[in-house]
Amino acid sequence: MNLIQGETLDDLEYKGLKIIQRDGYYHFTSDSVLLANLAKIRKGARVLDIGAGSGIISILIAAKTQAGEVVGVEIQQEMADMAVRSVKLNNLEDRVKIINSDIRDARGEIEYESFDAVVTNPPYLKVSSGEMSGAPNIDISRRELNITLEEIIFYGARYLKFGGSFSMVHKAERLGEIIYIMTEHSLIPKRLILVLPKRGFDADTVIITGKKGAKHGMKAEVLTVYNPDNTMTREASRLYNKE
Amino acid sequence: MNLIQGETLDDLEYKGLKIIQRDGYYHFTSDSVLLANLAKIRKGARVLDIGAGSGIISILIAAKTQAGEVVGVEIQQEMADMAVRSVKLNNLEDRVKIINSDIRDARGEIEYESFDAVVTNPPYLKVSSGEMSGAPNIDISRRELNITLEEIIFYGARYLKFGGSFSMVHKAERLGEIIYIMTEHSLIPKRLILVLPKRGFDADTVIITGKKGAKHGMKAEVLTVYNPDNTMTREASRLYNKE
Repeated sequence: MNLIQGETLDDLEYKGLKIIQRDGYYHFTSDSVLLANLAKIRKGARVLDIGAGSGIISILIAAKTQAGEVVGVEIQQEMADMAVRSVKLNNLEDRVKIINSDIRDARGEIEYESFDAVVTNPPYLKVSSGEMSGAPNIDISRRELNITLEEIIFYGARYLKFGGSFSMVHKAERLGEIIYIMTEHSLIPKRLILVLPKRGFDADTVIITGKKGAKHGMKAEVLTVYNPDNTMTREASRLYNKE
Repeated sequence: MNLIQGETLDDLEYKGLKIIQRDGYYHFTSDSVLLANLAKIRKGARVLDIGAGSGIISILIAAKTQAGEVVGVEIQQEMADMAVRSVKLNNLEDRVKIINSDIRDARGEIEYESFDAVVTNPPYLKVSSGEMSGAPNIDISRRELNITLEEIIFYGARYLKFGGSFSMVHKAERLGEIIYIMTEHSLIPKRLILVLPKRGFDADTVIITGKKGAKHGMKAEVLTVYNPDNTMTREASRLYNKE
């Protein structure tokens, strides 16, 4: 496997899985790992990863669940290319397909109402919030420059079968919008996890799962990442390193 | 102060406050106390308590904040009568007014867009969920027999001034509906508190505050009520007994 200038081959510390990342492009965070480990994927399920980036979520789900097929859609050509090579490197090409496309234009490749689960770690920041990073290929992964929260949810709902699950990780401050937009698109929230850096702190992250066409009624849970002594909590450690 | 047959005079354990309750009618829970202690009420504010019941929230807010006026609207005549007597008993009649009315018919007494804050501990249960208590005067306080979640939020929004706050305590399982309906009625969620009985348990209760006409963007927090050894946590103890 030849790496391109600026690329690194990073160890995922799980059954020898590796992933290619590149300077000047978005590097995945623990949020993606958490989402991949929390998503409940049934045996044989078809899974769509919207904004697949380096392929981290698609690869982890393929390796850790009995998903039948995982399709990762990524708009940036260089990121999609890295993801394709990472999938091959991990011998997952039978079950993971990376498509280089804007999710809004992906219907030539994938069909509406054909997935059992959608997972997504979308750009967190509004275009207007704070400063740009100065790296345009990173900003497109971090900000709603190309696609908004509403569009991500809209397309997630369209590609899901009735009864399918939509799981997203996002910033806690946007939880109100997320629940509102999901409900508008018939993705009824069923499970919310507030992720707290430490006990007594506000949540910084949320993981939310909705079910297309379900009845109302949900569970709300809390995941605390660090103990007061800065060691990782047992529950977080179990979730970040799920085997 | 003469009590009617079946009534008790209960001590609120705060500055000598007392409240009248009656057999066969809904008794307030710690949820109302928590809501009253968490609601941020500005000096001089006009506060509307929808479904005031025994008057617990109205009385605590009048006693603990510098609210200018608190109006409690209660549909059940016997409950409203108890609340009126409790208000007098605590010498709060200058600042607390109890109205015996269905909130849907209260416009002869109170005006739309005239309140700075709305607080409510509404019926938690859908008409269809689980068994009735067998006590009709209790069921009307616990179930959406007379009024639905959507109507409570609708009227809360109507009676609030632009920029006013809406604070509600409810069951965690209904959080999705609550956020959706609040947002529909321009009560934008600004603060969510998940109340956990203990660490590691799912939330059973939520307290949510929205602001009429605000921009999106919220905080999400956690309140854990009991320690692993079943003593009350310091944070819960502080909130339940706020002085």
